[in-house]
Amino acid sequence: MTVTVLRTQVAIIGAGPSGLLLGQLLSRQGIDNVLLERRSADHVLGRIRAGVLEQGMVDLLREAGVSDRMDEEGHSHTGVELAFDNRRIRVDLAAHTGGRSVMVYGQTEVTRDLMEARQALGTPSFYESEDVMPHDLESDSPCVTFSHAGRQYRLECDYVAGCDGYHGISRRSIPEDRLKTFERVYPFGWLGLLSDTPPVAEELIYARSERGFALCSMRSPTRSRYYVQVGLDERVEDWSDERFWSELKRRLPEEVADRLVTGPALEKSIAPLRSSVVEPMQYGRLFLVGDAAHIVPPTGAKGLNLAASDVNTLYRLLIKVYHQGRTDLIPRYSQTCLRRIWKAERFSWWMTSMLHRFSDGDDFDSRMQLAELDYLAGSEAGLTTFAENYVGLPYESLES
Amino acid sequence: MTVTVLRTQVAIIGAGPSGLLLGQLLSRQGIDNVLLERRSADHVLGRIRAGVLEQGMVDLLREAGVSDRMDEEGHSHTGVELAFDNRRIRVDLAAHTGGRSVMVYGQTEVTRDLMEARQALGTPSFYESEDVMPHDLESDSPCVTFSHAGRQYRLECDYVAGCDGYHGISRRSIPEDRLKTFERVYPFGWLGLLSDTPPVAEELIYARSERGFALCSMRSPTRSRYYVQVGLDERVEDWSDERFWSELKRRLPEEVADRLVTGPALEKSIAPLRSSVVEPMQYGRLFLVGDAAHIVPPTGAKGLNLAASDVNTLYRLLIKVYHQGRTDLIPRYSQTCLRRIWKAERFSWWMTSMLHRFSDGDDFDSRMQLAELDYLAGSEAGLTTFAENYVGLPYESLES
Repeated sequence: MTVTVLRTQVAIIGAGPSGLLLGQLLSRQGIDNVLLERRSADHVLGRIRAGVLEQGMVDLLREAGVSDRMDEEGHSHTGVELAFDNRRIRVDLAAHTGGRSVMVYGQTEVTRDLMEARQALGTPSFYESEDVMPHDLESDSPCVTFSHAGRQYRLECDYVAGCDGYHGISRRSIPEDRLKTFERVYPFGWLGLLSDTPPVAEELIYARSERGFALCSMRSPTRSRYYVQVGLDERVEDWSDERFWSELKRRLPEEVADRLVTGPALEKSIAPLRSSVVEPMQYGRLFLVGDAAHIVPPTGAKGLNLAASDVNTLYRLLIKVYHQGRTDLIPRYSQTCLRRIWKAERFSWWMTSMLHRFSDGDDFDSRMQLAELDYLAGSEAGLTTFAENYVGLPYESLES
Repeated sequence: MTVTVLRTQVAIIGAGPSGLLLGQLLSRQGIDNVLLERRSADHVLGRIRAGVLEQGMVDLLREAGVSDRMDEEGHSHTGVELAFDNRRIRVDLAAHTGGRSVMVYGQTEVTRDLMEARQALGTPSFYESEDVMPHDLESDSPCVTFSHAGRQYRLECDYVAGCDGYHGISRRSIPEDRLKTFERVYPFGWLGLLSDTPPVAEELIYARSERGFALCSMRSPTRSRYYVQVGLDERVEDWSDERFWSELKRRLPEEVADRLVTGPALEKSIAPLRSSVVEPMQYGRLFLVGDAAHIVPPTGAKGLNLAASDVNTLYRLLIKVYHQGRTDLIPRYSQTCLRRIWKAERFSWWMTSMLHRFSDGDDFDSRMQLAELDYLAGSEAGLTTFAENYVGLPYESLES
C-alpha cells in the first residue's frame, strides 16, 4: 500500500482548543505544524464545555491573534459570588488581585475562532484521521502514522504534542511503567443544563446548600448554564426540566431562586468529577498537553485554563528550541507544567471539597465547610487566596 | 449531716488556666467568685501542656495583672518555620499580621502565676474538692454542692462557669438531648519528649516528612519539647530516648537534624489527636469554657488559647451583666464563642491534615499536602492566612 510521507516540525495530535491554540501560536512564530484529529470539525464544535477563561489564557489568545471576537462578545467578570448558610459573599476578583479578572466566553467559541484562524493561515489539518499512532518517540526522528480519506500517511516530525485528551492515543503511547498516576474520584457528578434564558445574575454564583452544590453560570446575556450536584447513580433521563429547575431553586438563596428565569433545556448531561495527574508529562519527543495529562473537577473552571498554561509552556519552550537552539530546556517541560498544575489541582479539589455534600461526610465535615467559608468571608487574606487562584496563578517560567 | 452554705456570684469549677484566669479577671472587677477543683494544686501544676500563647491571651493575662513573670521570662516569637520536601519556609508572623506575635511561655508557668495571684488576693479556692455537683442550673438560683476535708458544702451562686475540661462534671450536668457533639478522631497521636537541652532552633519548626509529622518546640532557652507523630497502637514504653531522637532526626531537614542536641527525657508521653465541639455552650446558668466544650488537635497550639478566648467572652459578658444589668446578652454567649471556635477548629484540622501522614492516605493526598505547602510558600496572601490564624483571629464581640 502506498504511504504518503509528510514532514513538519511539530505534529499536534488533537484539535481541541489546546491543540489549535498551540498550532496557531507556533505558526505565527514560523514553526511548522500539522494537526491530526480523529473527529470531524463539527463534532469538536459540538462539545459543550467550560466558559470561564483566566486572564493568562485571554492574554495567550490575544498573543495568538484570535481575540477579536472574544474581546467583542466575551464578558469580563471582576467578581464571583459564594452562597452558603443564607449568606451571599461577592469576591471582588479585581480588588484582590491588582485588577485581574476572568472572561466568560464559551470553549466552543474559542475553538471556532481558532479553527477559522488556522484555516485562514492554511496550516495543514487532518480531521477525521483514523488509526493515529506516534512512533519512535525516544529517537531523534519520531513520526506519526495515520490514515485519512482512504490514504495512508506517515508524518515525520521533530516533536509530537499530545493534545488529545484523557482517552487519547498520546498518553497511551507511553509505556505504563514510565508514568505514575495520581487520582481522586469524587462520589458525585454534575448535572448541567443549557438554556436560552437570561442568567439569574451577572456574575457566577457558587452555592453550597444542605441539598448539595449548585452553580449558576452563563455563556452570554441570553444563554445560561446551570449545574446541580447529583449522585453517581443518577440518570439524565430521570431529570425532567421541571425537576432540574425545582432542585436548582431549592439550593439557591431565596432571593436568587425567586429571580430565576427557567426555560427548555438545549442540552442536559451528567459529568462525573475527578482529579487526575500523570507524571512525567514528557516521554522522549512527546509532550503531553492539557487533559492528556491531567483532569480537574469542574469547580473553579480550571480544566481549559490549565491546558492553556501547558500550551504556554510548550510554546515558549519550542520558540527557544527553534530560535535559540535551547534543546537543554526540553527536560524542564514536565516539571515546569507540573508546578502550576498541582496548585490548580489543589484549588479545584479544595473548592470541590468545601462546596459539595459528601455522602460519607458527617456533621463535623459540614461544620468545617461552613467555618472555612465564614473565615474566607471575613478575611482579606482569605478572599485574596480565593481570588488569586480563581483568576489563575502566574504562569511558571522554564528557567526559574 | 451539717452542710455549710456559702454564697458567691460566680462558681468556677476547675482550676486549670481558664478557671484561674476567669476568676482573676472577675475579682479585679469586684465580681465575687469561688473556685472548686477536684485535684491538688500540685497535681494541676504537674500537667505538661502547651506553651504557645496568642497575642490575645497575652493581652488578657496583662489585663488580669499576672503578666510580670511572663513578660520577663517568656519569649516573643515573630516567626515560625514550616519544613517540607527538603525546603524550609519561615512564616514571618509579625510582617503578615501588622506586628502581632506569639509568646512562648509554658502553660504550667501561666497556671503558677495565676495561682499565686489568686492566693495574694485571698479569693476562696477549694482544691481537692470531692463530689462536685452543680444543681438547679435552669433556675434563677443555681448552686454547687461538694465536700472538702470531710465537710459538706453548698455553694449558692448566680452563675456557674464550667472550666473543668472534657471529662469534667460541668458538661455532664447538661441533659444529653440538649447538646450536639461534632467530632473527628485522627488515626494517630503525638509522642512528646521534654528535655533539658537547648532548642534546636530559636523558633518552632513544624515538619512534614514521608515518615510523618514532627515538631520542634521549646519552653525556654534550656528546655526543649519535641514531638513525633506515632500510630495509635504505639506504647510509650517501646520508645527509648534513643529511638525517639533517632526518629525525630529522620523527620527533620538534614541541617536541622545535624544541630539537634539530645539528652535524657524529663517526661515522655503519647496523646491522641481529636477535634471535638459541643453545641450550645450554655445551659441555663451554666457556661462551658474551654476544653469542657471543645478539643482541638495540638497542631497550631490552639487549645489553651481557645479556652482564653472563651474566658474573654464570659468575662466581658459578666461585666455587662453585673455592672450594666445586661442580662439580655446572656443568650449570646454560646454563639459568640462558637464563631471563633469553629474557625480555630478549622485551622487546627487544616494544619493537622496538611502536615501529617494518614494511614489511609494515598499518593494524591500526599501531593495535595505538598501543593498546599508550595502554594502557601509562594503566596503573600497564603502566608497571611497562615500567620493571622496562627497568632489568633480577633476576639469576637458579644454585640456584633
